Amino acid sequence: MPQRSKAPQTQYLTSLTQLPSRSRTKPELAILIYDRIFEKSAAEFLSHFPFKFAVTSGESLKTIESFSSFCERLSRSGFDLPARQITVVAMGGGSVGDFAGFFASVYKRGVRLVHLPTTWLAAIDSAHGGKTALNVGGAKNQIGTFYPAASTCLVRSILESSGDRQVVDAFGELVKIAIIDGGAWVDALESSRLHGSALLWKFLKPAVESKMKIVRRDPREEKGLRQVLNFGHTLGHVLAAITQGLFFALEFSHQRRLLKDASFERAMSLMAGLGLVPNPPAKALSAGDLTRALLTDKKREAAGSVTFVFLRDFGRCERKSIPVTEIVAEARRQGWAQ
Amino acid sequence: MPQRSKAPQTQYLTSLTQLPSRSRTKPELAILIYDRIFEKSAAEFLSHFPFKFAVTSGESLKTIESFSSFCERLSRSGFDLPARQITVVAMGGGSVGDFAGFFASVYKRGVRLVHLPTTWLAAIDSAHGGKTALNVGGAKNQIGTFYPAASTCLVRSILESSGDRQVVDAFGELVKIAIIDGGAWVDALESSRLHGSALLWKFLKPAVESKMKIVRRDPREEKGLRQVLNFGHTLGHVLAAITQGLFFALEFSHQRRLLKDASFERAMSLMAGLGLVPNPPAKALSAGDLTRALLTDKKREAAGSVTFVFLRDFGRCERKSIPVTEIVAEARRQGWAQ
Repeated sequence: MPQRSKAPQTQYLTSLTQLPSRSRTKPELAILIYDRIFEKSAAEFLSHFPFKFAVTSGESLKTIESFSSFCERLSRSGFDLPARQITVVAMGGGSVGDFAGFFASVYKRGVRLVHLPTTWLAAIDSAHGGKTALNVGGAKNQIGTFYPAASTCLVRSILESSGDRQVVDAFGELVKIAIIDGGAWVDALESSRLHGSALLWKFLKPAVESKMKIVRRDPREEKGLRQVLNFGHTLGHVLAAITQGLFFALEFSHQRRLLKDASFERAMSLMAGLGLVPNPPAKALSAGDLTRALLTDKKREAAGSVTFVFLRDFGRCERKSIPVTEIVAEARRQGWAQ
Repeated sequence: MPQRSKAPQTQYLTSLTQLPSRSRTKPELAILIYDRIFEKSAAEFLSHFPFKFAVTSGESLKTIESFSSFCERLSRSGFDLPARQITVVAMGGGSVGDFAGFFASVYKRGVRLVHLPTTWLAAIDSAHGGKTALNVGGAKNQIGTFYPAASTCLVRSILESSGDRQVVDAFGELVKIAIIDGGAWVDALESSRLHGSALLWKFLKPAVESKMKIVRRDPREEKGLRQVLNFGHTLGHVLAAITQGLFFALEFSHQRRLLKDASFERAMSLMAGLGLVPNPPAKALSAGDLTRALLTDKKREAAGSVTFVFLRDFGRCERKSIPVTEIVAEARRQGWAQ
């Protein structure tokens, strides 16, 4: 009796210096969803895939309408295989990963998913942890699944082509996970003499492994354990700057005497060493705007309170439900709000 | 630290004689998706739910477009709660259950789902086992999830209002699961003097429990074990008549000497006792049409072969991958095809 064969045992994370000339996923069994900006630069790689679909990255990709039209496109392409043979390959940044990941999770009730992140932020964060998402109207990530990729392939040449601005954004995530994890690799990060993308590339793998260690303890966000990954996000989301949210959370933790001086200084000098500096907005937020922004955030626990992630030490976070008023007061004290 | 609270421990299956005057699910935490044919007859029950959405049952409900417009409707309704507090209640037949189940599985990455099936077929089969689905273009169930309901509520008065034709359709599923399971309840079914909906109601619970026993051994259809639930489906799908597919599968199993005479006779008299009789189409299928219909079926294993579920005895199925030509030859021998 034929049984559904198990997915081949592959390592979750692979690093390559360049796009493979042949994919380990049999291209004829793959649905390749790729950011159209790679149409030319990755032409040779793309040419191996008979079923490939260019998409335009960004929030407009993450709508149900674009999901619907993608399903129709696939249906017209004549692609048709049993679910267990199919692999969806997602080649792009965060929005492409969210979109293709969601598609893979619901196509024929779930097929194999491989991420090939093309931005540093996707490579260090969004490609890992299994969150997929679409938006509904103006509301972000209202529809989605928890659907971890079978494997993720990090390609140095692709990531290095993504520009310097990308590197700085990713440093925020790198330092966040370094502080949350506090493992031996963080010592190596602090003493590294590398810069920019060379530094990121070197510490990408341990950073991802640190994130995955946390995700695996709470893959569906049922126990609250994954919330430590939101360290720095509370104000970071409002300011649309994770790095600035980290400065706020570190200072807040220190101010509350949860984080002792030495560890606070260590975190600050890690950030300074990466060239990250506090950069309050020229026009500080009003207390009212900040309150509203914090309360519409999905992490709201009950009217008026949010879960805030404090740091007690490298490798030791503490989640507390605190009144929004306390966050606003602290933001004013630190100069982020007025 | 507030943790995501566990779903309250409820029994999976509850039976009620009438719609409850108060729902056990707090109505203000529920998204009630209901077949609009109950607008009047269930007005009192519906009146408890501040967030209720009438839908029109049928295949047109199971499109991504209708999914998309439902998401927009919900978004405009102002409903907004943390995922772990929300329950989706699906009140309707198979299409409503498939649709609402899919919605529950992806809304905020998954919320609690309660089925309130209103047709006998949904009550005995489709509400159980966690399969949710939408169609893409002409292709059925291309998009979906495995997402078991937290509980299913069987309401006698609702089911009895669904008409006699419904009862006969459900008898097909009842006899299928009875033959697959072969437990003690099947003896009771054979000797029961009840008829029609009274008979169905009495054996609904053991039939559902028998299905769930199989589903739980292979919830995501990864091991092939769930395929026994397709007993009778191979030709049943082609003829759009599960009962007729059962006659074919029983006769085929007997013809192949897999099913011994006594068990074959037992199955035939169980079916006869329920008033089910072989009813070949006036115009037999052509061999070519039958071959094409069998090969576009999703259960196709490899070009030219399908997995067919044979019966060896009550409670003992055997899955075999066999050439479509053998099925067509047997269908001609039995008079289903020419």
